[in-house]
This record gives sequence, C-alpha cells and structure tokens, in this order.
Amino acid sequence: MSLSGETDIATMMQGLGQNARKAAVSLAQVPTETKNAALVAAAKALRDLKADIIAANSEDVAEADQRGLSAAMRDRLILNSDRVEAMADGLEQIASLPDPVGRVLASWDRPNGLKFERVAVPLGVIGIIFESRPNVAADAGALCLKSGNAAILRGGSESYRSVQVILKALRMGLDVAGLDANTVQMIPTKDRAAVGCLLTMSDTVDVIVPRGGRGLIERVANESRIPVFKHLDGICHTYVHAASDPQMARDVVLNAKMRRTGICGATETILIDKAALPTHLPSIADALRNAGCEIRGDAEVQSMIPEALPATDADWDTEYLEAIVSIKVVSGLDEAVAHIAAHSSHHTDAILTDDASVAEAFLNAVDSAIVVHNASTQYADGGEFGFGAEIGISTGRFHARGPVGLEQLTSYKYKVRGSGQTRPV
Amino acid sequence: MSLSGETDIATMMQGLGQNARKAAVSLAQVPTETKNAALVAAAKALRDLKADIIAANSEDVAEADQRGLSAAMRDRLILNSDRVEAMADGLEQIASLPDPVGRVLASWDRPNGLKFERVAVPLGVIGIIFESRPNVAADAGALCLKSGNAAILRGGSESYRSVQVILKALRMGLDVAGLDANTVQMIPTKDRAAVGCLLTMSDTVDVIVPRGGRGLIERVANESRIPVFKHLDGICHTYVHAASDPQMARDVVLNAKMRRTGICGATETILIDKAALPTHLPSIADALRNAGCEIRGDAEVQSMIPEALPATDADWDTEYLEAIVSIKVVSGLDEAVAHIAAHSSHHTDAILTDDASVAEAFLNAVDSAIVVHNASTQYADGGEFGFGAEIGISTGRFHARGPVGLEQLTSYKYKVRGSGQTRPV
Repeated sequence: MSLSGETDIATMMQGLGQNARKAAVSLAQVPTETKNAALVAAAKALRDLKADIIAANSEDVAEADQRGLSAAMRDRLILNSDRVEAMADGLEQIASLPDPVGRVLASWDRPNGLKFERVAVPLGVIGIIFESRPNVAADAGALCLKSGNAAILRGGSESYRSVQVILKALRMGLDVAGLDANTVQMIPTKDRAAVGCLLTMSDTVDVIVPRGGRGLIERVANESRIPVFKHLDGICHTYVHAASDPQMARDVVLNAKMRRTGICGATETILIDKAALPTHLPSIADALRNAGCEIRGDAEVQSMIPEALPATDADWDTEYLEAIVSIKVVSGLDEAVAHIAAHSSHHTDAILTDDASVAEAFLNAVDSAIVVHNASTQYADGGEFGFGAEIGISTGRFHARGPVGLEQLTSYKYKVRGSGQTRPV
Repeated sequence: MSLSGETDIATMMQGLGQNARKAAVSLAQVPTETKNAALVAAAKALRDLKADIIAANSEDVAEADQRGLSAAMRDRLILNSDRVEAMADGLEQIASLPDPVGRVLASWDRPNGLKFERVAVPLGVIGIIFESRPNVAADAGALCLKSGNAAILRGGSESYRSVQVILKALRMGLDVAGLDANTVQMIPTKDRAAVGCLLTMSDTVDVIVPRGGRGLIERVANESRIPVFKHLDGICHTYVHAASDPQMARDVVLNAKMRRTGICGATETILIDKAALPTHLPSIADALRNAGCEIRGDAEVQSMIPEALPATDADWDTEYLEAIVSIKVVSGLDEAVAHIAAHSSHHTDAILTDDASVAEAFLNAVDSAIVVHNASTQYADGGEFGFGAEIGISTGRFHARGPVGLEQLTSYKYKVRGSGQTRPV
C-alpha cells in the first residue's frame, strides 16, 4: 500500500473504521462457540507460523538494534519460540473463559406487567495503540474478539513486521470460524498521522486503549475525542499501621516494592506509623537493602536508617519504576489517608494492620481503583483478580475501573417485554 | 459578585470546581441517613420558601416575556404552587430510594485466600447544564446528593433568579444535616464563558449532564473534554410485524406516537410489514388521524391512505417531536432491522408481534439502549423502569446507557482483603 499524504491516510483510516464497524455489528450476534473456534484456530495458526513470526521479529530486532533501542525495549520486542507458545496458550485460555456478551446483569418486573432485562452487549470497535511488545497484538485482539468487539491494532513502528505475521495468524483463525476478517485489523502504515486520525474517529471507534509508556498515554489522552481506558501512573502506597505484625509487614512491603519494580502495581511510597518505627522500620529497611533497594526517607527515617537518602517533595509524586522507595512517617490513619489523597494516582493502595476497624476505615476512605488490606499491591492485575486476562488497568472512574477484563469490554442494553402496554398520560 | 473578564471567570470557575471536589470527597463517606435528612429538610425549605420562589420566578418570566420567549419555553419556565410542591415531593421521593453507594456489586474469593469485593462509590463531581425548566435544579441536585456526588448547576439565563432561590432551599437542607454547602453549587454568572470553562475542568469535574435542546447538547458534546451523559436525538421506531394483534398494534402505536409528541421516547417512524397492510394499516391510520397526527408515507402507504403526504429521504432521519409520523413498508424482520440500524438514534425501538422467536431476534439484533417487545416506546423513562428518578437518558455506550438513575451515577472500587499474601514471581 502506498500512501502519499495526509488525505490518503485519512481516507484509508475512514475505510478501516467502517470495516471495523461492519465487522462489529455482525460479531455482536456471533455464538460463543464460533468465537472460541476462531481463537483456538488462531492459536494453532500462531504455532504453525512460528518460524515466520520469529523470522519477521528478527528483522524488527535487527532494525531496532541499528537505531539503538534500549536493552529493556529490546527485551520486550523479542519473540522466541517460548513467547510464541505463550501467545498461543493465551488465546486458548481466552477461549476457555466465559463469554461476557449476553449475560443478564439484572432483571425485574413492574406492576404493569412489563418485564425488564439489562443484558451485556459489546462496546463496538476498540482501538489499541501499543509499544514494543508485539504479543499485545495477540492478547488484545483475542480479548476484543471474545467480548464481541472489533479491534484496530496499532503497534510501535519497531514491531511492525512481527505484528503483521501475528495478525495473519489471527485472521487465519477468523477465517476457519467463518468470521469477518476485519474483526481484527492493523493500521497498514507506520505514519504517525494515522494515530491522529484514529483518535478522532468517534463515528466508528468506541474506545481507545493505549498500552505503553507515559509519553504515549499522555498523547492519546490529550488528542483523543474518544473515551480512553488508561492509567497514567501507578504511584502506589503501602501503609504500615502500628497494629500490624512486623514480620508480615516486612514480607508484604518487600514483595510490594521489589517483586517487580517496573510494573504499575509496584509500591513506590511506604507510609509508616510513628509508633511502628522501633518495631517495624529496621527489619523492613534491612529487607529492602538486602534486595538492592535504595531508600529515601524523611528526617525521622534518616535518623534511624543511616544509608537513607533525603526524600524531597518530588519523591512523594514520583513513580520510580525501579529499585528505589520513599518512606514517610505518619502520625496515624488520618495522615496516611490524607497523604494518599494528595499523592496517589488512585491506582492501588494498601494498608497492613491487624486492627479490622482501622482496615475498614482505610478501605472506605481511600479513593483508589483498588484498595488492599494485608496483601501486596502487586496483586493489581486482572489475572490475579481471577479475570483470566486483562487488556489493561484503568484509573478512570468511568465505565471501567481497575483491571479491564472481558466483562469491562461490554456495555449493556435494556430488553423490555410487554403484552400491549400503553403508557398512561 | 462582579466579574470583569475571562480571567476572572476562569479563576472563579476553578474555585467552584475545587470547592465541589472537596465537598465530594467528604460526601462520599456520609451515611445514608444524613443524606436523606438533608433531602427531607430541603423539601421543607422549598415549601417554606414557596412565596420567594414564585416571586423570583415571576421576575424571570416577566423578563422572558419582554425578550419574547416561545409559549412552550414560557410554560416550562413557570413555577406555581403546584410545581413547587412537586419539586418538594420529588426530593422526598429521592430520600426514600435506596442508597446506591456502598452496594456490593460482586464478591469472590481466590484460591490464595484473597477476598475481592467490587463496591459502588460516587462518580465525584457532576456538572449539570440545563435550559428553561428551573425545577431541574432541585431534581438533579437531589439525585447527585443522594448518590454521593457534588453538583455544579448551570441553568439557563432565563431561570437565573428562580434557580437561585431553589439553590438556597437545597443549601438550607444541607445545613440542617451538617453537610458542606458546596455539595450543590450554581455558577454565579450568566456569562456563557463560564460554561466553556466548566467543560474543560477535567481535574475537578467528572461528568457533564446537559439537559435541553439539540443546540445545547451539540455544543456540550463538541466542547467538552469531560465525559458527557447525553442523547442528541430520539428517532424511535415501532415495527408492526405481520403476526401482531391488529387492535393491540393500533393502541400501542397510537400511544407510542401521540401520548406526548415532544419527548425523546416518542415514536417517529412506524415500520409495517407488507403482509400486515390490509389488516393493520387502516385502523392505525384512522387512530392517528383522529388524534390529529399528520401521516407521511412511502408510495405503498400513500396508495392506501389518501391523506398521507409523501415521505422523503429526510423523513426517515427526522425527530419531529410533534404530531407527525412517517410510515414505511418493509418486507419483514430483516428489512426492519436494517432500516433501524441505518436511521435509529439507538435510543428506543420496539417490535409488535405475537411471534416470540421474531421478537427475540429483534431484541437481539437492534443495537439500541432500550429495545421493546409489545409495548409503547414512551416507556423509555427512568420512573417507568422503576429507577424512582432519572437525571437523563444516555444513548452513549459508556458507563451509563438508557435511563440514568441513582445507580448509574456511581462508579466502583475493588476492596481486596488478605492475610499477608505476597505475589509469587
């Protein structure tokens, strides 16, 4: 395909959108078994095309190496045999999940005999904009298909060839099941203007899901005229209450910060009760230090932990995404809640305490998508929630909050059944 | 308050937003009884201030008369003793409805012992922009309060004085219950620039609800950087299937079109099976004619109904909102569904038939917020759904679809309760 300018791209994108809308309309009524058959066949196609996928990916990686991609980005870009198998397994797992479409969410009768049902229906067309990890194409495409939504995929330019072959496998699956190939499309150009078009196509696209770094998500949030499922930051807190078991607190804090430092559910700031300093802080600091974590603390923390660096105001608003943690001493629940209200990104915040009433007060008062009592913030994940899979995590309050799984990719409609009722004046 | 320019208005609006956010944070945790006490006290205050409300309203009406308001607008603007009583009754009714906040929407346990709860929480701050009918201030303010949301009200300039006194009553109610007066605020200027500010205040406003004519809603939809609960049109269809009882069909069609012609759930187009023409069309046309309805039809309808005017292409896309109906002959279910897909505003569409399988096919295939079998489209109303009250009807697919009642004015969060769980690598 040759695109010679912005007009061509706009026209092409309109066509893509209309194709997606058409596919979505028919997909909305496709039986569960047909969608599952497409997913299982697509998993087989991924395995059958494994050599092609790895070859295309090698070209992508070689080009990225020439352009000097960071080691982390390079790792995310690489597809090997295990990763292709994992993609195929993921598709089969999504096939095994319950179909979210058609669920009766509520039903009731009225005194006049009218019967009401609130029934889950697909959202429509979902635009997914992602960076580096080409396997998002398989995951996200499969989640959309299972939830009855058409998908328009836009990978990073560095994964263009890899995504092309993954898309081919998805389309082979759709073909086996007799479904519209346009159920999953990719934008057939690396030109960034195409993303600009996508973000304004409110007639044909219902929601945008950006998957990537802060720069991507900010651009999408600023430019989009379409609802976006997103979280910008994951500045998550773990609050160590004085009435918590010191050993449990140490283990959970260590896991919350260090299990993986680069994910959005990683704790970035530890709040600790003044009364817990002698009993809890030394062992927590030891555990973090031994795991290679840099500690930044307020004056009280520094006075107890010699290697702690001073935390500046900026630290309380920083998502490190690496082995650094900030620790602040608070006088109790109220100060902890106030600090979280001021600095949290409302993603995931936890309290560690054996006092049930303090725990309930925290869970009620903290206005975050996920609030946790006595467990690691790193459980902020659709898989850990039991959703089977997720397309992302939302810190927005609208429609989907927290992990966005199959159910969150649906809307609903009301079915009203009567026997000739007319409404009185 | 004197506002000398755009900067002053922007500053004032920022302050309004911050006050609302602050009120919303504390309101989110207020017990049901306190919110109900505020509503009941506000109802009393409305009755106590009845003379003041009517006096302020008379000034509004006098000014509107000078500016030559239409009779319909004037009728909507007027507040008399009955209408003030109705407002007060409405507040008491909202007090009697269940509190939507804190409902446990789902709960489940995971094999690792983590306990998950999905719990309803308020949306936050709701901006309500309305025209002419000043009683919207009481309704919408009360719905927001009951659902734990702070409200920023912006009435039409023609109802400015009336809304001021209604707001005073609401605030007296808040005061009696010891709640933040900023739970319900109104924009203290008629300057239209203030609306422009409101629509961009995404830091402090969570959703906008426009209540009024198409011009208002289009402006809001185009300018808003904040989610909007809205419907632009109500081009509703009633499809008369051949296997419907002719008398039922006549009665329901008549009600669907003529009960009230100016509401969004009024049927604008009748689709009728070719096979039903001899049995159904004459009596439907008679009933409509006798009720004073103008009929526009395609060639086949015109050949049977002498007074029918020709329907042009534009008729199928027109929301008349008056005593005019368009009638189109279709070959059967598929053509009816296709016509609705092409011309419906996805608000409310109905089928009349005694064939249960055809009815189900229609309810599944038609992608509208409300799909109806054997009843009038005029049931599209939160009260008729049993919601007690509604702030509007949404044709959007996001978050709220169909009537927007108390439950739809909430979001949710996840409460996760553990016993020291750490996530395995």
